[in-house]
Amino acid sequence: MKTELGVKNCLYPLPTTIVGALVNGKPNYITIAHVGIMDLESVSLGMNKRHYTNAGIKANKTFSMNIPSIKLVKETDYCGLISGKNHSKADMFGTFYGKLKTAPMIEQCSINMECELSKIVDFPNHDIFIGKIATTYCDEAVLTNDEVDFEKVQPILFSMNDQSYWSLGKKIAKPWSIGKELNK
Amino acid sequence: MKTELGVKNCLYPLPTTIVGALVNGKPNYITIAHVGIMDLESVSLGMNKRHYTNAGIKANKTFSMNIPSIKLVKETDYCGLISGKNHSKADMFGTFYGKLKTAPMIEQCSINMECELSKIVDFPNHDIFIGKIATTYCDEAVLTNDEVDFEKVQPILFSMNDQSYWSLGKKIAKPWSIGKELNK
Repeated sequence: MKTELGVKNCLYPLPTTIVGALVNGKPNYITIAHVGIMDLESVSLGMNKRHYTNAGIKANKTFSMNIPSIKLVKETDYCGLISGKNHSKADMFGTFYGKLKTAPMIEQCSINMECELSKIVDFPNHDIFIGKIATTYCDEAVLTNDEVDFEKVQPILFSMNDQSYWSLGKKIAKPWSIGKELNK
Repeated sequence: MKTELGVKNCLYPLPTTIVGALVNGKPNYITIAHVGIMDLESVSLGMNKRHYTNAGIKANKTFSMNIPSIKLVKETDYCGLISGKNHSKADMFGTFYGKLKTAPMIEQCSINMECELSKIVDFPNHDIFIGKIATTYCDEAVLTNDEVDFEKVQPILFSMNDQSYWSLGKKIAKPWSIGKELNK
């Protein structure tokens, strides 16, 4: 039995990221889970225009996307609670820089994507930042056979509807493979 | 120890969706996990231009986003393996329509978002379809206290790097809440 929910975004869970940018010359970090993949080289961030970080992304045309593990759930949530306008988050994490020089990245996150801003899609209350990945860094500890293994990454998954952070479950099947069984 | 992976999209896992559209007047379904949230009313789909479905979305300016559960993993994967150009997928699921009339939705998926195309962002090999949600439908069975409960939805999570479908794990914390502990 179907129920109508009205206009309700249910495209969850999404991976919780910590976005890094230089704002007024200092590293700032903000938690964003309204994210997406455009193609294999590009990502999107949906960021409310009132956030402190947006001006830094626009000024430097770079940002980083860092994937925290569930061990960092408190720090991750904190970065979404407190604005860099009022409290510096520059020293919350170890910061490193890559080839773009202006995209601060978080040492404690096992995956770091350094991005160049390629486009802003203007929404009523949100800047949608589309970034092209310049390089990706990761901790060797999350690799299995030289590939990123999400069982080791332990990402924090976010859903708005039931207001929850979730862990990742188990591998259940192989894409481009299990569906072939229906052909038999 | 950080390793450089080159240009590698690691924004995973993302929820696997089945996108519905009318193509040449018939319902067609395609599996897409390169998705994202723009704001609370809008979603994005990153769809390779060679897909059969793109023309239908452009013609009708509508599409649906359906969230299958892990029980439908074979059917979901199948929809990503076989092109509607060669094999009709119109009868794979029960189809229903909502207020937009031209966005076929899947009865067997517990969540269905009916979307109006609001923008196409042109990428070299991909159409990025941005859709505004007109209405969302769901099975009453996935609600808890009138809210969508992802423990009941059992979404199929997708990661490209380790080529896996994953289940959702457990609730680990409450957003806008657990981070307050760091303030003490």
